[in-house]
Amino acid sequence: MSDDCAEKTVETELEIEGRKVKVRAQMERQLPPWGKTTLVGKSLRRVDGPDKVTGAARYTHDVQLPGMLYGKVLRSPHARARVAELGLSAAAKLPGVLAVLGPGDVRGVRLGGREVLSAEASYAGEEIAALAATDEETAEEALSLIRVRWEPLPHVLEPEDAMAPGAPALQPGGNVLGGGFGPQTPGKPEVYERGDAPAALEAAEVTLERIYETPAAQHACLETHGAVAAWDGDGLTVWESTQGVFFVRSALCEALGLPASRVRVLCPFMGGGFGSKNSADRYTLLAALLARRSGRPVRMVLSRREDFEAGAYRPASRQQLAIGLTRRGRIVALTSRAVNPVGSALEGHYFGSCVGPVQDFYSCANVRTENYAILTSSPPPSAFRAPGHVQGAFALEQLVDEAADELGLDPVRLRLANLSANDPDSGLPYASNGLASCLRLGAKAIGWDSRKPPRTKTGRFRSGLGVAIATWGAGGGPPAVAQIVLHEDGSVVVLTGACDLGTGTRTVMTQIAAEELGVAVSAVLVANGDTRTTPYCLPSFGSLTVASTGPAVRLAAAEVKRQLLDAASPILGAPASSLLVMRGKVRHAVTGKSVAVASIAASLPARMIVGTSQRGPNPDGVVLASFSAQFAQVEVDCRFGTVRVKRFVSAHDCGRVLNPATWSSQIQGGVLQGIGYALLEQRTRDPGTGRQLNAGLLDYKIPTVLDSPPEIEVIDAAPPYPANNIGAKGSGEPPIIPVAAAIANAVANATGRRLRTAPITPARLLAALSAEP
Amino acid sequence: MSDDCAEKTVETELEIEGRKVKVRAQMERQLPPWGKTTLVGKSLRRVDGPDKVTGAARYTHDVQLPGMLYGKVLRSPHARARVAELGLSAAAKLPGVLAVLGPGDVRGVRLGGREVLSAEASYAGEEIAALAATDEETAEEALSLIRVRWEPLPHVLEPEDAMAPGAPALQPGGNVLGGGFGPQTPGKPEVYERGDAPAALEAAEVTLERIYETPAAQHACLETHGAVAAWDGDGLTVWESTQGVFFVRSALCEALGLPASRVRVLCPFMGGGFGSKNSADRYTLLAALLARRSGRPVRMVLSRREDFEAGAYRPASRQQLAIGLTRRGRIVALTSRAVNPVGSALEGHYFGSCVGPVQDFYSCANVRTENYAILTSSPPPSAFRAPGHVQGAFALEQLVDEAADELGLDPVRLRLANLSANDPDSGLPYASNGLASCLRLGAKAIGWDSRKPPRTKTGRFRSGLGVAIATWGAGGGPPAVAQIVLHEDGSVVVLTGACDLGTGTRTVMTQIAAEELGVAVSAVLVANGDTRTTPYCLPSFGSLTVASTGPAVRLAAAEVKRQLLDAASPILGAPASSLLVMRGKVRHAVTGKSVAVASIAASLPARMIVGTSQRGPNPDGVVLASFSAQFAQVEVDCRFGTVRVKRFVSAHDCGRVLNPATWSSQIQGGVLQGIGYALLEQRTRDPGTGRQLNAGLLDYKIPTVLDSPPEIEVIDAAPPYPANNIGAKGSGEPPIIPVAAAIANAVANATGRRLRTAPITPARLLAALSAEP
Repeated sequence: MSDDCAEKTVETELEIEGRKVKVRAQMERQLPPWGKTTLVGKSLRRVDGPDKVTGAARYTHDVQLPGMLYGKVLRSPHARARVAELGLSAAAKLPGVLAVLGPGDVRGVRLGGREVLSAEASYAGEEIAALAATDEETAEEALSLIRVRWEPLPHVLEPEDAMAPGAPALQPGGNVLGGGFGPQTPGKPEVYERGDAPAALEAAEVTLERIYETPAAQHACLETHGAVAAWDGDGLTVWESTQGVFFVRSALCEALGLPASRVRVLCPFMGGGFGSKNSADRYTLLAALLARRSGRPVRMVLSRREDFEAGAYRPASRQQLAIGLTRRGRIVALTSRAVNPVGSALEGHYFGSCVGPVQDFYSCANVRTENYAILTSSPPPSAFRAPGHVQGAFALEQLVDEAADELGLDPVRLRLANLSANDPDSGLPYASNGLASCLRLGAKAIGWDSRKPPRTKTGRFRSGLGVAIATWGAGGGPPAVAQIVLHEDGSVVVLTGACDLGTGTRTVMTQIAAEELGVAVSAVLVANGDTRTTPYCLPSFGSLTVASTGPAVRLAAAEVKRQLLDAASPILGAPASSLLVMRGKVRHAVTGKSVAVASIAASLPARMIVGTSQRGPNPDGVVLASFSAQFAQVEVDCRFGTVRVKRFVSAHDCGRVLNPATWSSQIQGGVLQGIGYALLEQRTRDPGTGRQLNAGLLDYKIPTVLDSPPEIEVIDAAPPYPANNIGAKGSGEPPIIPVAAAIANAVANATGRRLRTAPITPARLLAALSAEP
Repeated sequence: MSDDCAEKTVETELEIEGRKVKVRAQMERQLPPWGKTTLVGKSLRRVDGPDKVTGAARYTHDVQLPGMLYGKVLRSPHARARVAELGLSAAAKLPGVLAVLGPGDVRGVRLGGREVLSAEASYAGEEIAALAATDEETAEEALSLIRVRWEPLPHVLEPEDAMAPGAPALQPGGNVLGGGFGPQTPGKPEVYERGDAPAALEAAEVTLERIYETPAAQHACLETHGAVAAWDGDGLTVWESTQGVFFVRSALCEALGLPASRVRVLCPFMGGGFGSKNSADRYTLLAALLARRSGRPVRMVLSRREDFEAGAYRPASRQQLAIGLTRRGRIVALTSRAVNPVGSALEGHYFGSCVGPVQDFYSCANVRTENYAILTSSPPPSAFRAPGHVQGAFALEQLVDEAADELGLDPVRLRLANLSANDPDSGLPYASNGLASCLRLGAKAIGWDSRKPPRTKTGRFRSGLGVAIATWGAGGGPPAVAQIVLHEDGSVVVLTGACDLGTGTRTVMTQIAAEELGVAVSAVLVANGDTRTTPYCLPSFGSLTVASTGPAVRLAAAEVKRQLLDAASPILGAPASSLLVMRGKVRHAVTGKSVAVASIAASLPARMIVGTSQRGPNPDGVVLASFSAQFAQVEVDCRFGTVRVKRFVSAHDCGRVLNPATWSSQIQGGVLQGIGYALLEQRTRDPGTGRQLNAGLLDYKIPTVLDSPPEIEVIDAAPPYPANNIGAKGSGEPPIIPVAAAIANAVANATGRRLRTAPITPARLLAALSAEP
């Protein structure tokens, strides 16, 4: 039951209650890398595939509880308006309605600094009132009985309007904020600087300055946001479609004043998050509040329209970039001035920084970025797969191509020439870096050598090749704890707080545990996403799940194995060091004498072996990142302005690939999402009301299988990665980062026209084609 | 996350796969006893009281799942009969019926060695077919549509008939078995012998030989037996009203061929077990099988009638005892020949040995017992609170009183003179023994000195005093594991596999954890009874829960505290040994400098502290037992033959009393159950059909509050108990053991008539009163 005694400890400095103190963190013995593996690295089928296909897998949307009510929310139809009067009584009297809440009923219940129901709407779709009824139809009818007298207030949707003199101030400090995490100085951008970029630009042999624009894009998860809340006495249980049960719990505890022990958040299965489901949202709290008020469980699941209108999104950007180079193609200066419209609030909402790629893609001594967050009358944005980097790469990776054109250099060679062996920001070396391999292998796979300049292309259908790269911090790290229980019959349960967003976490953790323990995959069950019974875990965000939880699972398995071999040693009459576990038996390495794992477990006083281990901290003095180079071959229909991606090659360094099948799915999904971002997706709103015009999958176009190239070729270009015990880095976010830029570069290569605004719609492409080149 | 490194290991010899091997068991550092306690020893109110009173506590009977079906069982109306034809099709065709199972559908699914549905009934009430329907009424109607052609077989209900020559053989080896656990020799009793009892009896100055009879008594739990089963893919979740979720899991895994990891058994709350709910029963398996067949969850909850008819019971006994003494009252010989009718099967059914008290209550060098188990056409019995000892004490403790009468000695003095400092069987010393104190303090409390001989009593209402004692092995022991999680806000969850039968386990474990950790009771939540998420635990039987799980909880709390103080040490700039936890803060013992527990937990890389510890083995060379002496004052109504218990004193040595309130409830409940056994309860059956005549609470009389004396005085007579780290022994079973004998002895003291058959009904008492004395 105990961990290995030979722990390393590391010291970190923390500020605790105002004191700076050194805190010793235990660090489990890091294991040596695996030699030959039998399960890790194999394309094991998803262990939860059958459950998903048969419907046995229960998502939050599937949760049904006896007496469960259906919660609905009244949302503002105005982009900005005060609630002068709110009449809830007719709704409350409707038979079947068991709880109605207005802002006055939930005063002081706050999420991200704001009241959970608002008496002043700051965007169309904001939550004003909520109710719960015995069925959805009654709840809808009751919503229609709520009487609101609105006092409209002036609103502003576009950042330029919000920054203009005389614009209505959406917050007391004004509408202009810095775009980062740090303390805000109203009116000032967040500035990053290394070297002297303005001077270097001035002195550069070649300079280019361009403006790029990206749209507000929405996550459109297969499963919309939703929660089911049920009270047992003073204890609250919440099923939430979330990436992180512990973040949901923290938010609920803070908002409702409950101890962590009394709040149980569960998410065994969920249908996509992409950064939009990192914590609780207002609907979660409203479900809990309505459940408390009514004494019944309450299901609050957003409709697709609500999920779009009041849900999360990647904010739009307007990025003014400049690059300075030598004639031979050495980048000497980079600047970016970026504007991000961030809706009605910044507090508690992370949307990423689109200036990141300018700072960290290339070796460049002189960099300056200015990043603005502009308040508008929109819902707040959220993280969305590689937040910031997707927008930033669209700009930077086109600018680099434009510079290559200007200099008459090959875009792949120009990139190779400017890659950095060290992290350009900190100057520290990368723990591993396969970016050059990604470029070389990807270029070979796509047939880069056959790439021809646009002037050689004529006719209605023109083909082009494009490239773009990505760097993404994806090393994970603590907190990452796993617990493994070997039961009396030799079956194994892996307990992890990690939510499986559909990426295959359960499958990969099964492989890691089975590999290390020496048991069959079928003997292992992963039980995950339950704050009551699984160890603490960060949300599945930041490409960290494999790199954080994976090493913890391996350590926990090793700890279980250690106890198992210790217990087997007297039975086999041999030292534990001479024993190994193979196919469910502990076996003497030489004599072959063996005893079943189940027999050992059943013989122990505790009847089970429990191993709990936490992943050690990452090594000092190195930077951990995943890398990608992607290549698109497009065909432009010059008559209709449509772009078809004919081939796509996605080359990655994310360390060891634990499961090629789930990994390829992850990459291909990211590429497809990037294709949508490049060609299809943008939130559009009515300027008069601020209401979204395409709040549904009929009007908001995400790519279908018809928009996909026949094949998305995935290449593993990873050198060995020594920084954790499984040798793997994250690969959740890298696949989407360069896609749109690669496609835009391919379109430019096909047509000679530079499309600097995403998405590259037929209207924009036709306009560009009809303009002078 | 790791346990203390300073583990002790102990070696035990086990037989594993045919080899005898020494197995090292880790033994956590045993903690020194508590000094002054602030929470342990206090009458903390039940922590789950509010949930139980408000209905928030969810019992198995309360489980409702969407789509859940109601399962029902067709039972044999015959005491012994073959199913010649079984017509299930009409039932299967009834709308609303979604699954029907007959013996042929579940062939090979076995429990306790027998098929789960039987094509040959061996008792009235045996399971023949099962079905599940959308509601109970439809299920009942469907049962009535099942057509059975029965071929009755000869049955036998009474053990004398079953033992008689020419009796129908209920099993191939005949109807006579030994009454113990060991290998059976058909026709032979289980024999225990020390010294030479026949010779010592022969030589004794005084000998008495008497026959005592006890009835089949039923558990009559507030919550009847029941289970709800639901499949998720190939995983099975079962809510069961059980004393032991892990035993239920093992039975399900074995019967259904499932790995332990895929079967989750839950029992957060349950309404009484008393030994009848130690594992899965046929209804559990039928619920699982019907759920698999129908693809829907199935609730299978026994009606009160089924709970009586096919449920568990304490077997009747016929005990022929002899005692030999010196004239001065020294017991020199004891023999018992006991016959226990055990229904249709012995395999897998533990009913206890009624010869135990003869072996272990008194210091006596010459003891011989013969114990028979006799097959009859009845359901199998089960453990029932102090199995065997209740029957045995009824006999032995009356015989000792009869001997005292014969010798003209005081029954308390006679007992005191024959107590043993060592366990009479093994000769090893008891770790602690307060039996003499129990006798002395109890005698004082009841006013024993005022006891008068029966000849002094006249008139319709006659009062009498009686005494009886008990010894019960109640030291618990491994396996006993607990896990404690300190969450990021300082709240604490105690994870234990132990089921709380209503005895207060949750409350007492809260006290132990809060005491050791130095946090408030309100900060602690006990999450229990879940095979997926709590450590392994034996069922709550054998009076072991406090003595087994309690020390494990204290060790786990100490482990959490150790990690907490280690983490606090650098923050407070002081060695961990100088720190203590008080009221949610870690405090320097001298300077008073402090930091909140929550701050420390939140600062740790793992965001929580997890302590997992297992209770060490019991010390060698000593015997662990609880002791009790009980005193009844009765008033006999000689006109109607009724007995009223006017006062009752129950004195106990079960080590440290952790919570006087829950402990007293436990004792009082045991005494009341004993009063029922003494005066009211007996299963009665129709000899022709074998069907029970009183299968319901209207006809099967358990005591009500009107049958209770106004007060049941509970006395703690425990000396310090050093054998585990909480100083507590078990007290679940001792309270019932001597009750019936104490009452019978009091009736004899009141009337001069010896009632050797329980229950002491008015008919029996009036018959005794009208007979010659």
